[in-house]
Amino acid sequence: MNRARTPTSTDIADSTPDQVEAAVAAAHGAASTWAVTPPADRARALTQVADVLDAHGEELIDLAAQESHLPLGRLRGELVRTTFQLRHLGQYVAAGRHLDPIVDHADPDWPMGAPRPDLRRTHLPLGVVLNFAAGNFPFAFSVPGGDTASALAAGCPVVVKIHPGHPRLSVRIGDLMTSALHSTGAPVGVFGTIAGIDAGITALTDPRVRAATFTGSTRGGRALLDIASSRPDPIPFFGELGSVNPVFVTAAADRARGAEIAEQYVASFTLGMGQFCTSPGLLIVPDGSATLAALERATLPDPAPMLTATMRAGFDRAVGEVAALDGVSTLHIVDGDDALTAAVQLHRTTAARVLDDPETLLQECFGPSSVIVTYADAAELTALADALPGQLTATVQGEESDVGDDMHSLTDALARAAGRLLWNQWPTGVSVTDAQHHGGPYPASTAIHTTSVGTKAIARFLRPITYQNFPAGLLPQELRTSARAN
Amino acid sequence: MNRARTPTSTDIADSTPDQVEAAVAAAHGAASTWAVTPPADRARALTQVADVLDAHGEELIDLAAQESHLPLGRLRGELVRTTFQLRHLGQYVAAGRHLDPIVDHADPDWPMGAPRPDLRRTHLPLGVVLNFAAGNFPFAFSVPGGDTASALAAGCPVVVKIHPGHPRLSVRIGDLMTSALHSTGAPVGVFGTIAGIDAGITALTDPRVRAATFTGSTRGGRALLDIASSRPDPIPFFGELGSVNPVFVTAAADRARGAEIAEQYVASFTLGMGQFCTSPGLLIVPDGSATLAALERATLPDPAPMLTATMRAGFDRAVGEVAALDGVSTLHIVDGDDALTAAVQLHRTTAARVLDDPETLLQECFGPSSVIVTYADAAELTALADALPGQLTATVQGEESDVGDDMHSLTDALARAAGRLLWNQWPTGVSVTDAQHHGGPYPASTAIHTTSVGTKAIARFLRPITYQNFPAGLLPQELRTSARAN
Repeated sequence: MNRARTPTSTDIADSTPDQVEAAVAAAHGAASTWAVTPPADRARALTQVADVLDAHGEELIDLAAQESHLPLGRLRGELVRTTFQLRHLGQYVAAGRHLDPIVDHADPDWPMGAPRPDLRRTHLPLGVVLNFAAGNFPFAFSVPGGDTASALAAGCPVVVKIHPGHPRLSVRIGDLMTSALHSTGAPVGVFGTIAGIDAGITALTDPRVRAATFTGSTRGGRALLDIASSRPDPIPFFGELGSVNPVFVTAAADRARGAEIAEQYVASFTLGMGQFCTSPGLLIVPDGSATLAALERATLPDPAPMLTATMRAGFDRAVGEVAALDGVSTLHIVDGDDALTAAVQLHRTTAARVLDDPETLLQECFGPSSVIVTYADAAELTALADALPGQLTATVQGEESDVGDDMHSLTDALARAAGRLLWNQWPTGVSVTDAQHHGGPYPASTAIHTTSVGTKAIARFLRPITYQNFPAGLLPQELRTSARAN
Repeated sequence: MNRARTPTSTDIADSTPDQVEAAVAAAHGAASTWAVTPPADRARALTQVADVLDAHGEELIDLAAQESHLPLGRLRGELVRTTFQLRHLGQYVAAGRHLDPIVDHADPDWPMGAPRPDLRRTHLPLGVVLNFAAGNFPFAFSVPGGDTASALAAGCPVVVKIHPGHPRLSVRIGDLMTSALHSTGAPVGVFGTIAGIDAGITALTDPRVRAATFTGSTRGGRALLDIASSRPDPIPFFGELGSVNPVFVTAAADRARGAEIAEQYVASFTLGMGQFCTSPGLLIVPDGSATLAALERATLPDPAPMLTATMRAGFDRAVGEVAALDGVSTLHIVDGDDALTAAVQLHRTTAARVLDDPETLLQECFGPSSVIVTYADAAELTALADALPGQLTATVQGEESDVGDDMHSLTDALARAAGRLLWNQWPTGVSVTDAQHHGGPYPASTAIHTTSVGTKAIARFLRPITYQNFPAGLLPQELRTSARAN
């Protein structure tokens, strides 16, 4: 743990350059030990972290609620998810599932024209990982979140640049994690925190930092990506940036259950004041839609405080651009009554209008706003899908009777744009599983091959290595077997 | 096929902007069809390409020899490898091995605090791939080479920017490939070529191009990487750049077989006039080394023409910098007798000298040169390993008696630097297999998670996608099964 503290204040001071140096040096010093710590021991350390966070649950949830303004129920659920994730990713590596060993025995008759040597491939951790914590998930995408858990599980030390939206919580969790890891015998320096964007940039340009993660805005993430990419030695930057998460409603689904779709949609886009990267920002319905009629009669929920004044300002700016466009009208708006509380709002426009100005209308407005888009026919529906920038998710509300060629055109177009496609469910809520994929084409992700949620998130922090003709005594354990021959 | 030709000349004109546009537009037009072409049909197309290249083997080998100055025997072997690779990567996808499907069934009791939905993960092709062909392998890393084969196998159309070192061969192979692909029913535009660096850059910045590959110099590759990374939508850039491929000789191996190591080393670093990315540029031997004594008595082979005058000039510049350093002396030099024929040469220095100026002494000199480095003890050996920039390969020449803690320190350090570690073999010659890894930390590769050789090379051109709660009729075939539950 290396960071500045002013214990009598609630503010956490930005880390000084010396503090950043100390955190990175300590992490680097821990790297080779942590890399060769048996995965089962790394899993035990992650489980210990989870146990300690659970044991301090009520204290942490109170702190999170004070700083983030999120409801207690939501925070309780997020902590359950976070400690599950720590244990689950640990179990995954303890079982050796991250290593994917491949053994090719020597073959003098290999048909490429030269004998095949004995080749054995496994994976090694990358080294120190810098994690830029997110503001909207004080637990699950922050100090003890998925990026931290998957990097530690992979065998990489982690330095977290804490988010200014919940600094005291971050420091408290950092302290608990450091002592929990220490109690399991993990090397000193395997985990640390720093504060302040300058500190983050200093760390991002440090040669000892071998990869970085980020969850947040497209603007902020792109700036950090550019720094990572322009280093003398560019490093992987796993950024999860913007997404509008469109929901496409077929004519049949609209007829069959327009009122139900309207109700579920309002619940989804207003959940947590729309402060989820998977919050749906577009609902695409047929002309003369029953869903739209139901939305016209709907009552939006009362607004609640947003996470920070900065987020509210960013939301107001983005949604203001959308609402001011010709051809966009406001269906509902429920104003807030204080500086943090943004208006919950619903707008409408047409597919033709979106196709005229996709840059404005397909941008993410991070907060409690959504746009209803009416379309004339299947061709317009597919044209909208084709116009989408990279998305984390795209959803279809359809009926079994829709499953045909037109629907294949739509889902093929959505598959080109998005990392996860949903049918008759809602994109908010991202399960931590083996098959999960939370990513997608830019700007959904800066690293299209990778996911930031689920067990495959661990692979971001591993690289392949192949041993040729190596004596068994020098091979990693998982390669000493000759079980898999090709 | 879209490129400029002046049929009465041996020169191939650079592609015009209109020709680049036509090639990229045609590839983009083929993308959705090729993506859903069954992998077995893609494999048949690749096999047809291989059959046609084999059928025209002698013609192509003659052309390659004229343009590249490489010996016929070497080119024959390279063509065998290339057509094997086309068929082998095709078979891999035909068997569905690239898709790695994962099925998580719905689970209401999933312990993360919310029910797990039905999630099914597979992989989709990225879209149009731009391949900057290499000069040193006119077949295996050029128009019909590994990047082209793996992208086509993955379901991506390919535009190759041909290498100026063998333009007529490139155009001839491009024509043969286009007609071979056409004969199997592959969509028009699935493969094309362009010529000229400006044409390559125009294509690299085209929004329809979704990934690029490159094999070549660190300087050239870095310039292209920076262009790919600074696009409004950055794309993956799979560059395989520089590597010095150090060989570490233990004291025991030096004693046991110094003369043999010296002989094999000379054969390895002079093979193909050192124009391999895996050519060993450093031989690290103990003080008072028998290997060094044998090298002092050795006769270097006669030089041969290099691939191009540009490559020779680059080699002369780099090796000149090394040879001019204080503390570096020349052991042998055999001058060439014409403008293309560089001197074959061997230099020597000490580990301490290398550690003083790693930037100069650990740079790649692409050509027939190598440096013998003497070390005092095991600590100096490990210090050298720790000083290495990212490497494609690192080799140990050791004895069974060396397998102990000191050797673990060395191989652990080499594992941090390199993508492939060899024991008692030589790095030149890269087998195409499942377990192969041809990559490594920057500058060995610009994409540390990926390999450019072997069946895993296909994964570069695929991205994950997850389907949530999808009806079977809309799922990709490989996800309709419920075989794998977690």
